Amino acid sequence: MNILIIGGGGFIGQKLARQLAQQGRLRGQTIDRLTLADLAAPATVAASFVVDTCACNITDRPSLDALITPETDVIFLLAAVVSSHAEADFDAGMQVNLFGVLNVLDRCRAAGHAPVVVFTSSLAVFGGEVPDPIRDWTIPNPQTSYGTQKAMGELLINDYSRRGMIDGRGFRLPTIAVRPGKPNRAASSFMSSIIREPLNGQEAVCPVADDYLHYYLSPRRCVDNLLLGAEIEAEAFGSNRCLTMPGQTLSIRQMIDAMTEVAGPEPEKLIRWEPQDEIQKIVSGWRFDYDPAKAVELGLTADQSFVENVRYYIEDDQTAA
Amino acid sequence: MNILIIGGGGFIGQKLARQLAQQGRLRGQTIDRLTLADLAAPATVAASFVVDTCACNITDRPSLDALITPETDVIFLLAAVVSSHAEADFDAGMQVNLFGVLNVLDRCRAAGHAPVVVFTSSLAVFGGEVPDPIRDWTIPNPQTSYGTQKAMGELLINDYSRRGMIDGRGFRLPTIAVRPGKPNRAASSFMSSIIREPLNGQEAVCPVADDYLHYYLSPRRCVDNLLLGAEIEAEAFGSNRCLTMPGQTLSIRQMIDAMTEVAGPEPEKLIRWEPQDEIQKIVSGWRFDYDPAKAVELGLTADQSFVENVRYYIEDDQTAA
Repeated sequence: MNILIIGGGGFIGQKLARQLAQQGRLRGQTIDRLTLADLAAPATVAASFVVDTCACNITDRPSLDALITPETDVIFLLAAVVSSHAEADFDAGMQVNLFGVLNVLDRCRAAGHAPVVVFTSSLAVFGGEVPDPIRDWTIPNPQTSYGTQKAMGELLINDYSRRGMIDGRGFRLPTIAVRPGKPNRAASSFMSSIIREPLNGQEAVCPVADDYLHYYLSPRRCVDNLLLGAEIEAEAFGSNRCLTMPGQTLSIRQMIDAMTEVAGPEPEKLIRWEPQDEIQKIVSGWRFDYDPAKAVELGLTADQSFVENVRYYIEDDQTAA
Repeated sequence: MNILIIGGGGFIGQKLARQLAQQGRLRGQTIDRLTLADLAAPATVAASFVVDTCACNITDRPSLDALITPETDVIFLLAAVVSSHAEADFDAGMQVNLFGVLNVLDRCRAAGHAPVVVFTSSLAVFGGEVPDPIRDWTIPNPQTSYGTQKAMGELLINDYSRRGMIDGRGFRLPTIAVRPGKPNRAASSFMSSIIREPLNGQEAVCPVADDYLHYYLSPRRCVDNLLLGAEIEAEAFGSNRCLTMPGQTLSIRQMIDAMTEVAGPEPEKLIRWEPQDEIQKIVSGWRFDYDPAKAVELGLTADQSFVENVRYYIEDDQTAA
């Protein structure tokens, strides 16, 4: 079993790699080799199997020809230009999120062995005038370029799978919180910052009101779901390989209260409330009411309460911060 | 007012051109010039304004640079590799239906004046496990490469419009009947043949039972809807520029009865009932139950009864057959 993580330097990619190292098996087979690819060669992980790391840009098709071979059994395709970057730089988003994905799929097609491809999509595919809750049959009606590009990726995952060029499966990730590391250019960055920075004794800015509702999943649960996503038999997906990954709908207030339950009253005092129009304009277009029935039926899970998310951050990531 | 029809050699493109010649105006302005572009330079139409015809392949970006200029006010983008072709030749479909559409949109973006772009999508974007009726918020879940490519085109029309690069609007066409011309190898070919050939005193084969249900629109009404689609103010579309064009759900029996009402009992006798498993297998997967509420609200219309479709064929096309 040879596994490739494209976007293996990102925090989900690294957590996925560490979990694969820990379990040593996938789809009933022993893992022989794990390759972590990203724009810069990612950090390696300790494992009982071979771990390669390499630099790769999915917009450069030749670099994929060496990376994806008939020996590549499972590909996690996590690489993406994130939402506010794709909104600020339309061409950058199209190059990576559309043409880069096409390069990966076309390389798989050329390799000819229909590898499992686990694609990370986003709830940013949803928006506009559609009734709540968002169901398995709700139209992706994205209101950002990032969401548009992810929705196109889903269509490609489905068609390349239907044609037998890949064995694809796509999962629309809820916003991952608490995300480790530093703030990034995603418009959702504050949704982790307002918990992570205060837990680390640092100030954080909340650009929206505390009744802002959104849909969240912990990194630990996300990795579990992606691994399960690679295990599910193709036939179980039926006529659509792309699903909403389960999450929890929470207000900013509920998240802060969970932080207080775990870490006491001091962290909240480090949150500065500073409304930001540009962020609000983007995130207010995002939906928060989902019914991910098919994913739940396939065994994917959400966190039970945001207290879990806060505890996972402290257990898994805080010492590394 | 300068208008460009890409796919101007097809039967819808030609009818659209003749209707524009007849009305002489669009969006409140006098038409100065109409350009008909297709793979081979299309037949011209008689008009009070200038009509240009030219050969153009939308997969060739340079040929679009000359065709679309800041003086091009309205573009009808009808060109496509059709369903059975796109299924048989994946690359041909991707080149025209995805990359060709992208070329048109990127040329519009470069021209910088956000022209009106009327895009023809298809009900082939729908399929799989979604509840009836298909509503404005039902997921495009295509089960063909053609449907996939059209669904991606819809996403692009929306995002380029949202970003102000074009003023796009897309319409998913029902099956057009009675289609002029000759039978072809499309699985849906019989849906026009069983009316057209008997009206012309020729035999036709019906490969399905007479209770087979499908969703139809006449060519004349389709052209009216496309022209209205160009007129509608952008704001009226809300958060999704792409809509299902209204049609009628009819059984084969209802269609034949309408033919008999218009032309008497003789034509029906020319229909040979020869069930064909291969055709039935394909067309039984197509959806027929639609609720195009938003399009109806915007003023688009279906035929009132298939009697209209039969009469339009006789009035508009039969002498040319």
